Amino acid sequence: MRRTSARLADGREIIYFDQDCADVRDAVDRRPLSPTMSASELRWDPLLGEYVAIASHRQDRTYLPPADECPLCPSRDGRLTEIPSSDYDVVVFENRFPAFTERAPGGRGRCEVVCFTSDHDRSFRELTSERVRTVVDVWADRTEELSRLDGVRWVYPFENRGAEVRVTLGHPHGQIYAYPYVTPRTKNLLASIASYGPSLMGDILEFEAKSERVLVTGEHFTVFVPFAARWPIEVHMLPHRHVPDLAAANAGERAEIAVLYRRVLRALDRLYDTPTPYIAAWHQAPVHLGRDTVRLHLELTSPRRAADRLKYLAGSESAMGAWIGDVRPEDAADRIRRAIQMQPIESV
Amino acid sequence: MRRTSARLADGREIIYFDQDCADVRDAVDRRPLSPTMSASELRWDPLLGEYVAIASHRQDRTYLPPADECPLCPSRDGRLTEIPSSDYDVVVFENRFPAFTERAPGGRGRCEVVCFTSDHDRSFRELTSERVRTVVDVWADRTEELSRLDGVRWVYPFENRGAEVRVTLGHPHGQIYAYPYVTPRTKNLLASIASYGPSLMGDILEFEAKSERVLVTGEHFTVFVPFAARWPIEVHMLPHRHVPDLAAANAGERAEIAVLYRRVLRALDRLYDTPTPYIAAWHQAPVHLGRDTVRLHLELTSPRRAADRLKYLAGSESAMGAWIGDVRPEDAADRIRRAIQMQPIESV
Repeated sequence: MRRTSARLADGREIIYFDQDCADVRDAVDRRPLSPTMSASELRWDPLLGEYVAIASHRQDRTYLPPADECPLCPSRDGRLTEIPSSDYDVVVFENRFPAFTERAPGGRGRCEVVCFTSDHDRSFRELTSERVRTVVDVWADRTEELSRLDGVRWVYPFENRGAEVRVTLGHPHGQIYAYPYVTPRTKNLLASIASYGPSLMGDILEFEAKSERVLVTGEHFTVFVPFAARWPIEVHMLPHRHVPDLAAANAGERAEIAVLYRRVLRALDRLYDTPTPYIAAWHQAPVHLGRDTVRLHLELTSPRRAADRLKYLAGSESAMGAWIGDVRPEDAADRIRRAIQMQPIESV
Repeated sequence: MRRTSARLADGREIIYFDQDCADVRDAVDRRPLSPTMSASELRWDPLLGEYVAIASHRQDRTYLPPADECPLCPSRDGRLTEIPSSDYDVVVFENRFPAFTERAPGGRGRCEVVCFTSDHDRSFRELTSERVRTVVDVWADRTEELSRLDGVRWVYPFENRGAEVRVTLGHPHGQIYAYPYVTPRTKNLLASIASYGPSLMGDILEFEAKSERVLVTGEHFTVFVPFAARWPIEVHMLPHRHVPDLAAANAGERAEIAVLYRRVLRALDRLYDTPTPYIAAWHQAPVHLGRDTVRLHLELTSPRRAADRLKYLAGSESAMGAWIGDVRPEDAADRIRRAIQMQPIESV
């Protein structure tokens, strides 16, 4: 893999990750961009003991542009986009509308966009297994590098797919947030570990691995619907040994992540006649805390509860955090397992 | 106020609350209803230390019926609904698709529906101030009675309004959940109080009351946009003295709740040309915990961030609980305050 770092016209970093080491990425960003603003501000909510980032400059961010104005396509035929090069494999760049930047007075961190392919109309599950493997290496690269930034407490790669979970851009891409604090969800997890003991995540794996909710058992990972799933579709993936984050995963583990993750995404799109919206969240150990107890895990969730219905977070979930699940996790697991088994196992 | 308790055909309780004590509610439910099922099950999520209720029977609940099949209208002209009487003021009954019931083996609690008016096409803000006052008394009545039920730990009156926040029925109504556990949000609040000290909520009131985010200062309550608002529209209301729940509010406080709450709802519907969806959440002290420290408060939130745009909870909020606000709370307060000031102050 060849890695080329460059700068966009407004000073933001862009990094090309190419499978073919012969690819040269020396295109210059010729757009007349004004410097990025970041009025992001971290506020402390004393009621719940959580930070809230106020990023009002994001209100004007690009929203569902037509395909021929997509800012994530390569720059071609005289049309200049966020990616100066005329092609790319995987590319990462700093978000122009970031919630966190290294330059902010408060809320120092970084928000990156990861484009999985230059092909606007492809989705993650349609990537080649080689490309998915490259993406996993990119996530690992970014986790390692962002963890070293001053002030960064936690690195989080994720993908939102589908209009129902906030598409603002249709081009296949994910994001990476490097937060200046440990997020509330991870704080809860650390509290659970403190109260239960350091073996919590290993014990959860053992409990789930022998349940009827297992979807796939790999050599390095087990994929399952959790006992207390909150969403109509919820898939977790846990490594068999203690791996704190993607950067710490070895080559065999990364290869298996690529295979299993793509297999799950393909299954999700077989559940209904139309693509299923999802949020794929890669939970990792914080940079300075719980390195020996918080294990890397994927939480893939979808609000879809029927072909034409979504679960909405109403009074109980949204205001109280009290979840009422509509689907028995065992029933959901049956359906997803069947969809996985319908697929030919990828040879590559 | 006259209070009449009766039973529906399947044994569920229905309670009429009438402003005119001469109203007699003796209609019998003549529907051939099978007994309600509740397969609700409480599951413990060890990862986050939270209960999740699995209520798969809710998957088949009534979903957006046409107005002439509304189950919350009174029974008239031979059409039998959930309310046997041919008219009502405010009526409360046990949900036919409950997340919690008194009869469940696990997850004992109760879920009630509160119809604010028999008029299908009215919304809460259009109720007379006398009717809003009745609704406040009904919430107080239910809080007191449900708190006495065996196993109930926490009582929560709320209203979801608008298709965007999960309308399943268009008729103006709210709900009351009596939970068999203290919800995660309230557990967080208890933890904040434990770490800050018992004066937390009074100190928040003092801090907000002198901020530029105040919307209305009443005799008994202050209405404001909080410093660390998560939603594009978020309005809180805190009492000036320590009131743990609606049942503990005195007559003067209840009267002011009715006036201020309706005033805020009217303002929200002036922000745009179409009605603004909202979740109105009445936070109360748990039944057995924090009675001296958790103060009654309203949190009214809306995901609307522009005339045609909603805030979606994507990767950061949904999976990590890390909120990125799109609107400065001070700017939101300015807008809502102007909308409040456009209204004539209700004389009644």
